[in-house]
Amino acid sequence: MGGDRRTFLKLALAAGSLAEGTRVAEAGEAPVAPAKVAWRRIATEEAFATPAQMEAMGALGRSTWNNPDLALWRSFTGSRGERMRLRRALLDITDERLADMDANGVDMHVLSLTSPGVQMFDAETAVRIAAEANDFLAGIIERHPGRFAGLAAFAPQDPAAAVREMERAVRELKLNGFILNSHTNNEYLDNPKYFPILEAAEALDRPIYIHPRCPSDLLVEGCREYGMTSGMWGFYAETSLHATRMLLSGVFDRFPRLKIVLGHMGEGLPYWLWRIGNIYDAFHPPGSATRLRTPPVEAFRRNFVITTSGVNDPDVLTYVIAKLGVENVMWAIDYPYERTAPAVRFMDSAPIPDADRRRIYQANAERVFHIGG
Amino acid sequence: MGGDRRTFLKLALAAGSLAEGTRVAEAGEAPVAPAKVAWRRIATEEAFATPAQMEAMGALGRSTWNNPDLALWRSFTGSRGERMRLRRALLDITDERLADMDANGVDMHVLSLTSPGVQMFDAETAVRIAAEANDFLAGIIERHPGRFAGLAAFAPQDPAAAVREMERAVRELKLNGFILNSHTNNEYLDNPKYFPILEAAEALDRPIYIHPRCPSDLLVEGCREYGMTSGMWGFYAETSLHATRMLLSGVFDRFPRLKIVLGHMGEGLPYWLWRIGNIYDAFHPPGSATRLRTPPVEAFRRNFVITTSGVNDPDVLTYVIAKLGVENVMWAIDYPYERTAPAVRFMDSAPIPDADRRRIYQANAERVFHIGG
Repeated sequence: MGGDRRTFLKLALAAGSLAEGTRVAEAGEAPVAPAKVAWRRIATEEAFATPAQMEAMGALGRSTWNNPDLALWRSFTGSRGERMRLRRALLDITDERLADMDANGVDMHVLSLTSPGVQMFDAETAVRIAAEANDFLAGIIERHPGRFAGLAAFAPQDPAAAVREMERAVRELKLNGFILNSHTNNEYLDNPKYFPILEAAEALDRPIYIHPRCPSDLLVEGCREYGMTSGMWGFYAETSLHATRMLLSGVFDRFPRLKIVLGHMGEGLPYWLWRIGNIYDAFHPPGSATRLRTPPVEAFRRNFVITTSGVNDPDVLTYVIAKLGVENVMWAIDYPYERTAPAVRFMDSAPIPDADRRRIYQANAERVFHIGG
Repeated sequence: MGGDRRTFLKLALAAGSLAEGTRVAEAGEAPVAPAKVAWRRIATEEAFATPAQMEAMGALGRSTWNNPDLALWRSFTGSRGERMRLRRALLDITDERLADMDANGVDMHVLSLTSPGVQMFDAETAVRIAAEANDFLAGIIERHPGRFAGLAAFAPQDPAAAVREMERAVRELKLNGFILNSHTNNEYLDNPKYFPILEAAEALDRPIYIHPRCPSDLLVEGCREYGMTSGMWGFYAETSLHATRMLLSGVFDRFPRLKIVLGHMGEGLPYWLWRIGNIYDAFHPPGSATRLRTPPVEAFRRNFVITTSGVNDPDVLTYVIAKLGVENVMWAIDYPYERTAPAVRFMDSAPIPDADRRRIYQANAERVFHIGG
């Protein structure tokens, strides 16, 4: 990787993109030299933090709560370079982030409050910090036309307040959907207490992006070692548990037009669709009383869209296009946790027709998130 | 599915395979009409039970232990048709099983004691039932030349006894490898207490097939509803947890020639290789003190072989061949939990060259399990 990085730095220097490039290159990846292309590159899972979130998560980090999601925030109290870079990059919108976008030919970030959002706070704090973050987002989007869209945070701890904030975020702030970081206090969206939230998302015709967080207490004890609460296991176990519970509980019979977005190539679910369908059919054969009107595989195809965040793998991309249809795949970087340049190189060079590249980079995101042209 | 089944029953009747076919068709799937082919169809994850295992699991089932693996065995006390069929099929080798193999052109079952094997018993009972099962297996294989191979059970509860049984199973009984049904009392093979077992498998040059069981206590609370302890989520969560712990713990630095087999298209790990490698490299960059000699992705490619059990999906097959190489994929049915005919139809019609079909049906299994020609 060191060699690869040096090679791209040399290429970037040779291409004359030094001015914007050097700051970004300090963070470890030289930018790609952006070519003129016939599409907008819209990145759909891009994280930011507000000072209020950072402060409140820092306070939790100083507690004795043995929750793996707090590890990141605890590390921000140190002085290690990479963690300080992350902290700065999460809080920044218009400095390094826009420069990184420009240097890599990224037109737009769809921003979302970084995991675990407001979901570890008491209800009152969560409601307040979510509203402030949404106001902040709306301001950023207004001041940088065409460069940002935003997913609204909400506080599942208070479903009625969450619904009010969701309505405000779409109707007044013109935000583009909602971000939920998997479980809230070890509960998932199949729990009927959250149905008003699902109903609101459906009525407002905006998707909920279910983003990973570290595994809930129901899962975490198996993966505390080896860094496994991360995307090496814990993130996809947690988020696939969440999505599978929704698919099997009948949520999508009740809310047939609800749209859910999953990152990380669908958190593994596209790989399992055949087996889930096969076992579901054995448990609940066609015609049986317990069979859902929309069985899980059909609901996944109808109600879910996935993004490429964190998985720059052309084999997986080929698979998900075959499995789900190109119209259900969107591009994402996962900035600043992942680097922009490899994500752009991956999608620029993916072995697909340019018409599909345009769908994944642009058209699907415009449709799903109601982003204007 | 009903229509599909009827169509195949008609085809089977038309093809004159009625004699062997009707018994099998009663169980819900008409056999494929076996064509003359240039390979042996070797099925590599085929379950059986011994009366002693059935009795001892039944006794556990009458306890109050709230363990999801006991649900199957509790259901055997009822009189429901499908469960009685399963019980009979697990205990049978030479009656319906051989007929089903013949009717579908399946040459060989690689047999293994059905999940959770002996792993829920006290150590003494486990050692005894494993040894009896292995003796039984050796007898079956001897009496039906070319029709069966077998994976030896062992009792991880007593690692020293397990090693002795593994040595006996290979050297005296000529069995072909080992079966382990994921966790034992909520512990995984990364636990150093089990290293003698890994050392023995490596020294004997025989693979350990890590088969699913329901999630351990570390995972189970998240998936007790909706039938999710099954292959719809729990099986792959449990088994991928097991394999990922091994990959990240350094087990394969210590035992570089250890061979692990995973069913169900690799329990999801092939889908995640890019992301696991990406995050591992970020946590443990090349040259860092904590980096394993053989990082997880390289260890997966070197030490793991997968089977198709329970996933008759040509898209997934195409993906795993591209990702792992065709030499690392074997065919399996998962009899009697899955039907033979669809698994044969799937592999007979998979969009791959016949040379690859022969590898997946035959050559890879002969190599991995040391099966004679």
